[in-house]
Amino acid sequence: MPTVRVTRRVHFSAAHRLHNPALSAEENERIFGLCNSPNWHGHNYELDVTVEGTPDPVTGYVVDLGHVRAAAEAVIGDLDHRNLNVDVPWLQGILPSTENLVVAIWDRLAPSIPSGRLARLVLWETPRNSAEYSGE
Amino acid sequence: MPTVRVTRRVHFSAAHRLHNPALSAEENERIFGLCNSPNWHGHNYELDVTVEGTPDPVTGYVVDLGHVRAAAEAVIGDLDHRNLNVDVPWLQGILPSTENLVVAIWDRLAPSIPSGRLARLVLWETPRNSAEYSGE
Amino acid sequence: MPTVRVTRRVHFSAAHRLHNPALSAEENERIFGLCNSPNWHGHNYELDVTVEGTPDPVTGYVVDLGHVRAAAEAVIGDLDHRNLNVDVPWLQGILPSTENLVVAIWDRLAPSIPSGRLARLVLWETPRNSAEYSGE
Amino acid sequence: MPTVRVTRRVHFSAAHRLHNPALSAEENERIFGLCNSPNWHGHNYELDVTVEGTPDPVTGYVVDLGHVRAAAEAVIGDLDHRNLNVDVPWLQGILPSTENLVVAIWDRLAPSIPSGRLARLVLWETPRNSAEYSGE
Amino acid sequence: MPTVRVTRRVHFSAAHRLHNPALSAEENERIFGLCNSPNWHGHNYELDVTVEGTPDPVTGYVVDLGHVRAAAEAVIGDLDHRNLNVDVPWLQGILPSTENLVVAIWDRLAPSIPSGRLARLVLWETPRNSAEYSGE
Amino acid sequence: MPTVRVTRRVHFSAAHRLHNPALSAEENERIFGLCNSPNWHGHNYELDVTVEGTPDPVTGYVVDLGHVRAAAEAVIGDLDHRNLNVDVPWLQGILPSTENLVVAIWDRLAPSIPSGRLARLVLWETPRNSAEYSGE
Repeated sequence: MPTVRVTRRVHFSAAHRLHNPALSAEENERIFGLCNSPNWHGHNYELDVTVEGTPDPVTGYVVDLGHVRAAAEAVIGDLDHRNLNVDVPWLQGILPSTENLVVAIWDRLAPSIPSGRLARLVLWETPRNSAEYSGE
Repeated sequence: MPTVRVTRRVHFSAAHRLHNPALSAEENERIFGLCNSPNWHGHNYELDVTVEGTPDPVTGYVVDLGHVRAAAEAVIGDLDHRNLNVDVPWLQGILPSTENLVVAIWDRLAPSIPSGRLARLVLWETPRNSAEYSGE
Repeated sequence: MPTVRVTRRVHFSAAHRLHNPALSAEENERIFGLCNSPNWHGHNYELDVTVEGTPDPVTGYVVDLGHVRAAAEAVIGDLDHRNLNVDVPWLQGILPSTENLVVAIWDRLAPSIPSGRLARLVLWETPRNSAEYSGE
Repeated sequence: MPTVRVTRRVHFSAAHRLHNPALSAEENERIFGLCNSPNWHGHNYELDVTVEGTPDPVTGYVVDLGHVRAAAEAVIGDLDHRNLNVDVPWLQGILPSTENLVVAIWDRLAPSIPSGRLARLVLWETPRNSAEYSGE
Repeated sequence: MPTVRVTRRVHFSAAHRLHNPALSAEENERIFGLCNSPNWHGHNYELDVTVEGTPDPVTGYVVDLGHVRAAAEAVIGDLDHRNLNVDVPWLQGILPSTENLVVAIWDRLAPSIPSGRLARLVLWETPRNSAEYSGE
Repeated sequence: MPTVRVTRRVHFSAAHRLHNPALSAEENERIFGLCNSPNWHGHNYELDVTVEGTPDPVTGYVVDLGHVRAAAEAVIGDLDHRNLNVDVPWLQGILPSTENLVVAIWDRLAPSIPSGRLARLVLWETPRNSAEYSGE
């Protein structure tokens, strides 16, 4: 039986700031530069959700991508048009770098994939910057 | 000797319908929703063909991508501007989900790669949905 | 007061066939080639809807693009996952070339733009082919 | 002598919020929905700057696009990684809709185009939403 | 009768150098910078060819875009995988800026558009730089 | 601790020619076709640089992508607006196929990645052709 990976792209827009409260203002600015700008900035994020499995002989689906979209939108609905540092209970205490965000989204999304298994997330902060996580 | 993967993108436009004749009309509509629409719908498909190997010391090529393009177009020439449920002998009996299509294209294309080995196919049904297969 | 044009992109997937029933089968094939393929083919269409007007001093909007999206989706909801030659009452008797489609969508959409005026539609049949109409 | 339009794309990332302080909280939420979210959200903006003129017989340029890029980046440098409601002196009192932003950027950028004349700005808030202004 | 604009995108890859032989080496380097690099550089060019007219009642076409593609490829076939300063007889004496190229391509292409009239060319030197010409 | 891959895209434009001086002119033309055109052609290259590692608990970064961009631009600065066959000391004797280029860039770039480890390079010669290398 072939193993196939299917991917659905979803998107959200959010504000954030890279700032570690354990560091001084000077250290934050030195490390994060413009990304530490005090009154926030923001991005159009794109998230590629990849699920791996064997196509079902009856449906031809590894998983219904409409269900993957719904599961992903349930998670990113908490992020869309929000402030990632302030508004999201499950991001409290997490510095919202793309790396930390993609891991946090994985932990939230993986249990709700209805069939197959979550195999890869790619989170695009801009069309030229991304972070990829495969659960390990 | 380095192992390099080279990729060529090709495209085709086709009609299809997700419908399993072993199921009732109601079950088909419940499972496939709009994709079961009786008079077909269609997509602009993009296919990324990846071949892996060692660059030839004389040519610098893993494989001439012009030959990969020709091999891929020989296969998708059967699909382009066709109905994937009706017109293609080698898709008879296959429910044309993106997953099943990418596996069927692999089986058809792999033997005609002139050098290196077919390593990955990614078939895009839309810019936001795709299926990826690596031959196993 | 400045005049600004705002644009919202929406998409749909549909099957069609270029075929003029007033012509012979041979003439149809000669004129339309693969696009005349008897069992249909299809595309992922993208539609750029542009509305022109003066930004409202209270909202900063020429028009709420969420309302433009809703108006456009009410029209293309008749086309999405459908057969443009067969399934759409308001396309009966219209040969579904990109040119004819963009004019038909204009006639259907223009009256439902809630503020400003519909200024331009661009309908993409593929990422390399499009038709543009400005209502005249 | 031919008239040619040349375009350079530049980008910036910023936070904002659609909120009119002359309206009640309820009216703001009703009109702007998620875009009124109190703790800001943000976007990757792309700005297409188009300059029109006659190519110089010596250089072949309507304008050196490197100079256009520099002029545009001098303006959007005030916006990049900033909060459009709070941080930008020349946006004070302006509700930062895409429409209002593109007009404000025009007023700021037009005088610094070194040759030719600014003919069109297109400001993309997302890949599916944009506002276009031609100075009138 | 509606007036519709149809567009077909074609592409070519070429080497060039911005250099005016009437200027000194120092002036060339000051004006053109890296684009004056002596041993050439190059680009993947994209050309958007727009033809305007009334859709034919029999075919639904302003013009068969397959014919537009063929006409455009006959012209850019002289440019593809060539050196724009050296290899192209009809570019002799023309400094190959994007502005001058789009005008030269217009003059070459306009007479061979089989129906409708050539309305606009957009020549992309990179995804962020382009020149647009409408024949006047 | 999670392992995350971060990617930054950078670009350059260059001229090249596929030509093996150990072969006859006829063999070169037979093997490389238009890519052997004597007076060079060129491309807009895009390079995706992927670094793998564990996010730093203090910064949330696998690596500061600004530093990755700087390291990559230090390498491709030798290639940008240059002739890959002629101008680049570290490409001497290397036939500039996409495969050979991506390996040469890897060897040059890997030692200068400031944290994490270089995990993958994808070099796009055009939007439809690429070569990918993971260091082995």
